[in-house]
Amino acid sequence: MDIACCDFEGVLVPEIWLAVADRHQADALRLTTRDIPDYQELMRLRLAEMDRLGLRLADVQAVVAEMQPLPGAAEFFSWLREHYQVAIISDTFYEFALPLLAKLGWPMLLSHTLELDGDGRIRGVRMRQQDPKRQCVLAFRGLNYRIVAVGDSYNDISMLRTADAAILYRPSAKVVADYPQFPIARDYDQLRAFFDQSRSTRNSGVS
Amino acid sequence: MDIACCDFEGVLVPEIWLAVADRHQADALRLTTRDIPDYQELMRLRLAEMDRLGLRLADVQAVVAEMQPLPGAAEFFSWLREHYQVAIISDTFYEFALPLLAKLGWPMLLSHTLELDGDGRIRGVRMRQQDPKRQCVLAFRGLNYRIVAVGDSYNDISMLRTADAAILYRPSAKVVADYPQFPIARDYDQLRAFFDQSRSTRNSGVS
Repeated sequence: MDIACCDFEGVLVPEIWLAVADRHQADALRLTTRDIPDYQELMRLRLAEMDRLGLRLADVQAVVAEMQPLPGAAEFFSWLREHYQVAIISDTFYEFALPLLAKLGWPMLLSHTLELDGDGRIRGVRMRQQDPKRQCVLAFRGLNYRIVAVGDSYNDISMLRTADAAILYRPSAKVVADYPQFPIARDYDQLRAFFDQSRSTRNSGVS
Repeated sequence: MDIACCDFEGVLVPEIWLAVADRHQADALRLTTRDIPDYQELMRLRLAEMDRLGLRLADVQAVVAEMQPLPGAAEFFSWLREHYQVAIISDTFYEFALPLLAKLGWPMLLSHTLELDGDGRIRGVRMRQQDPKRQCVLAFRGLNYRIVAVGDSYNDISMLRTADAAILYRPSAKVVADYPQFPIARDYDQLRAFFDQSRSTRNSGVS
């Protein structure tokens, strides 16, 4: 049995910040790690824009509550959980993600936490550790698991590099140009085929 | 957000080997880690008895396919997944556990693998590593999570000792006598109350 380390936004669910940007006509919230690879810098820009617009945690949660997993994601993810042990490895925040986790059947999510003030304003972010996605892969490898990983952008690259097998899911042209060494899946059928082929031989007898 | 490390048999589901013993009138399969703390030695005895009776993996799987989570376990476990990130930490084998994982909604299971011959006979066990339950807690702690753990028997003690908070669920009198330092839950209401009280303060705002 292997462990699948699966990015969240862009792979299983839409980009939360893009949905917030749409709802509140806040173009500065459209930037993602595809645009600004330094996540801490990206978060500083996002929180400054939230403040400027007077948006609080509850405003983001109201947007997320109406979001759905990407079309086909729930079916792919159900298959994945029957054939791998699965952890979602994300740079999102628990305070944002919970409604979407419910819609995916409460998989394990390893992500980060917000710092809030008493009025529900987001004061900052509490990143779990440096290079958090890579650290997750290393932790599971330390438990003698083989890791197969999927991500879509710059903050996934160190995770993909550390995994035993890895694939990009619908990456931007810029990501593909920068990291041509990874295979690419353009839809969930291709992604499922990759995970199916990447299973340890000893899994085959089980499932 | 904290991680709950949750034992499987005896806490969420019945003891699989006891169910096999019942079905096949095999009293030698009634021994558990409550009786023989050395798990490798216990497994040697179990596999020798399986051989003696001519039992194969498929015979165990047929028993497990008809098993259900313990009464109340599914409801407790649903609550737990909404308030913690959850990993089931077990010394069972993936080849045995999958039907019960399906009935619990495919949570992450960290356990072991069987060695089979071409005829489906169990030739041995592939333990993931030494002191595997404790290693799981250490791995998650290394990702800067706080760990709350529950188990029922000797093979859980090093996991409970390494966690930030820990409880025994319906332990035998012998386990209680040997490890009086741990609190005890006698039913799922008590277990849920313990996990509710043990959450990090910062979780409270989320859920």
